[in-house]
Order: sequence, then structure tokens, then C-alpha cells
Amino acid sequence: MNEERQGLRVVLVRTRNPLNIGAAARAMSNFGFDCLRVVNPFEPSFLEARSATGASNVLQSAEEFSSVAEAVADCSLVVGTTAVRHRQLHQPLHPLDRAAELLRDHLAAGQAALLFGSEKVGLSTDDLSHGQFLLRIPTYEKNISMNLGQAVAVCLYELSSRPQPASQEAPLSGAQPASVPVGSGLASSAVTERLTQTILQALRASRYVKPNSAIADEDKLRRLILRLHLSDADATLCLGMLRQILWKLRSR
Amino acid sequence: MNEERQGLRVVLVRTRNPLNIGAAARAMSNFGFDCLRVVNPFEPSFLEARSATGASNVLQSAEEFSSVAEAVADCSLVVGTTAVRHRQLHQPLHPLDRAAELLRDHLAAGQAALLFGSEKVGLSTDDLSHGQFLLRIPTYEKNISMNLGQAVAVCLYELSSRPQPASQEAPLSGAQPASVPVGSGLASSAVTERLTQTILQALRASRYVKPNSAIADEDKLRRLILRLHLSDADATLCLGMLRQILWKLRSR
Repeated sequence: MNEERQGLRVVLVRTRNPLNIGAAARAMSNFGFDCLRVVNPFEPSFLEARSATGASNVLQSAEEFSSVAEAVADCSLVVGTTAVRHRQLHQPLHPLDRAAELLRDHLAAGQAALLFGSEKVGLSTDDLSHGQFLLRIPTYEKNISMNLGQAVAVCLYELSSRPQPASQEAPLSGAQPASVPVGSGLASSAVTERLTQTILQALRASRYVKPNSAIADEDKLRRLILRLHLSDADATLCLGMLRQILWKLRSR
Repeated sequence: MNEERQGLRVVLVRTRNPLNIGAAARAMSNFGFDCLRVVNPFEPSFLEARSATGASNVLQSAEEFSSVAEAVADCSLVVGTTAVRHRQLHQPLHPLDRAAELLRDHLAAGQAALLFGSEKVGLSTDDLSHGQFLLRIPTYEKNISMNLGQAVAVCLYELSSRPQPASQEAPLSGAQPASVPVGSGLASSAVTERLTQTILQALRASRYVKPNSAIADEDKLRRLILRLHLSDADATLCLGMLRQILWKLRSR
């Protein structure tokens, strides 16, 4: 698992509190993960966390992005975290131990992102649409909402606490089959996102959706593409076809 | 496990930072644990944490003690947490998953305490001497020291994440036998501590140790008593005998 840990991107989306960014970074070094990415943090928070005395290497090398799509572009598996309160879910939801198994399997061969939302509202439906599945820490029903730094620590503990990837273990009775194909060969998020955007342009150009179509349509489309679990080669092939179609649509 | 959770006392020893006391309380309500005890907290911190807006029930009902011995008096299993840096250990050390199994087994029939030390130096050798065994969260060797609130969250997650007590599960191949007897019938910490103190007085009175003997002797003695895993009845019996011996020693 040691090298595999380097394939995980911990992505904090719109984090407000500098202490939470610092706490996430600390948990990462405790469990041997290096790659921290932040998306639209509350800027003074990020600067404060980064310049704190004793800020870790993890924090100092953290990368900043202005969208979830960019932050996960090099990943072929994206997993969102949620406390599932008042929200309709569009993706499969796994408890942490099962999600960690799927992530470990994937990290043995490819790169993956684990998304954490803001302290107040978590991840938006739009943020979540970039993920193949969602993960929930099994909390007590009376108080399901965890502190961000603690949620990161618990996830990374579970992810790193089983030294063998699940695929090398004897099958457990009652274990469900993986719902996500494993490892490399899967299209990266950058490719699936290009595909999503190209289809969307084609749908607009063909008036299937309105030119200024709602973000909900885009999210729905992105989830559909992710459900296909396209290989990199197939995604590239589709992209080529769609670009041609789009060119035709626009040149009429 | 639901009622068993009420048997766990989370004990924070000499905590400095109010945010950490609050974070520990929050993780407790996330995972359904109620009983928080603090030993000699930095007083303004404790008051600040307790009076914070939105302070949870857990925090508001937290009990304060002036010694570890008093805080664990009603528990028949006491487990210390450590990052094991530069310290000689006198008790068995278990990784978190194994320690959680032993704790769950015990909580099915008795009360247990889980001790967390101060942010800077953790638990002292004297604090640890009240525990039957120690627990370590398996962190990455380059950065083993965890944030207190995150350590509490990870421990309670592991403790609550397996719904069945280990004793009801089919035995796992390779699992070690429990090194601590299970459940009720074991002497409580209050009784073993009385025994320790009575023996110590007897040893002093008999000049086996000097009248102002070092705290190290006391710790050594306490660990010895705990290693015996005395039943409540046997501990009471020993105590009666020792009191008689002590009376004799003093009346000469």
C-alpha cells in the first residue's frame, strides 16, 4: 500500500476554516498520504494554514484549483464523501469500510480522488456529479455530521489500516462484488470530462437541450458517462466521433 | 453495541486546548458515546469548551476529576493510548483494531475507560500504570503523533464500526487469544487501587520501600496488581488480609 498511497488525491472543496485544512494535512502525514488539493478555499484561510509555524510538507506542497473538474482531472476514480442529510443521491453509496476496499483496489493500478466538502454544507450535487460513488462514515443517527479534520482522519485510517489490497485476500463470504472496475485502463476524469462537455455542446447545438441549459442537465450527463466506466481507449474513440459530429452540427 | 457504548468512559488527561476537548466531545456524539471525563484540564480551556455556543450534551455533562485513579474508579478495564515515542513500555501494546476487539468484549459485560493524554506529552508513565494494556493507532513512521481530536475520532470509529461483539463472531484464523479476561466479575479500578495503596503502606511500614518511596515504585506495584486480573471477590479478600497485616505492622 505504501506506493499506492501516493496515488490518492485528498481534495478539500470550499473549506472555510484554516484549522481544518491544517488538520486534514496532519492526518495525511500521520497515515502516509502526500497529495493535498484545495478547490476554491476561503483564501485567507488557505494562506493562514499554509504559513502556520510547523506547517507540514503536505500543506506546503498543496495545490490550489478553481474547480472540482480540474482538481480530479488526473484521476480515474473519484469518490465523494457525504453525511446524507436531506439530499437525493444519484450515485451508489458505500459505507467507509467497503468504499476503502474499492479505493485500495483502484489505487493498486491507478489514481483516485477523495472529495470532502465545506464545513457547513458539504459537497454540492454538482461537486458530487464528478464521483463514481459516494462514501459515508457510519455515524450515530442523532449526530451524523462530523468535523472535517476528523472525517479526513477516519477515512485515511480506514484506507491505510488494512495492509493488503482486497484483491490479494481470500474472498470473504458475504462480500459484494466490486461495483467499479479496477485499476488502470479506465479513462481519467480529464477525458470523461472532455467527453461530457463535448456531448453537451453537441446536445446544445442540436437543440436537444437549450443553449443555456441548466447545470442539472450537465450533472445528469456527467453521471451517465461515469456509469459507463469507459476505458481510456473507448473514451478517446467516442470523443473523436463526437467532435466530428459537433463540427458538422456547427458548420450547417 | 448500542447499550455497551454507555459503558465506555472517554478520559482526557491534562488537555490544554479547548478546541480539542470540544472535538473529542463531537466525535463521541458522532459515534454514540456519552460519558466524557476530564482529569486536571487546563481550567480556562475546559470552561471555554463547555460554555461554547452549541456545546453538546456530552460536553455539558462531562465530569471533572483531579486524578486518573478517581476518573477510572468504576471501570474494570483501563486502556491507555500512546504514540510510543522514546518510552519504555511496561504493559502489552495492541494495535487499534485488536484493542477495539478487547474493549468491545469487555463492554458487553463491564465498564471500561479509554485514556488520552495531553497534546504535548501524551500520558505519563504514572497515568499509564492505571491501564491493563496500551493501544496504538497504526500511523506512518515519519509522523506518528496525531491530533488529539482526530485520535479520539479514529478510536471511536474503530470501536463502533463492527456491530457485533467479537465473541459472537466466528473465530478468525490467525486471531490471537484475548490477553485480558472478559467482562464483569473483574475487580474495578477502585478496588485494585485500594489494594495497591494498602500494599504500598504495608511495604513502607515494613521498610521494604522507604517511607517516601518514589512514584516509580508505586507504578511498578500498580502494574503488577493489574497483571493479576483479580476477580472482585479475590481483590476484596486480599484487601482484608493486607489491612490486617498493615494494622499489625503499625501497632508494633
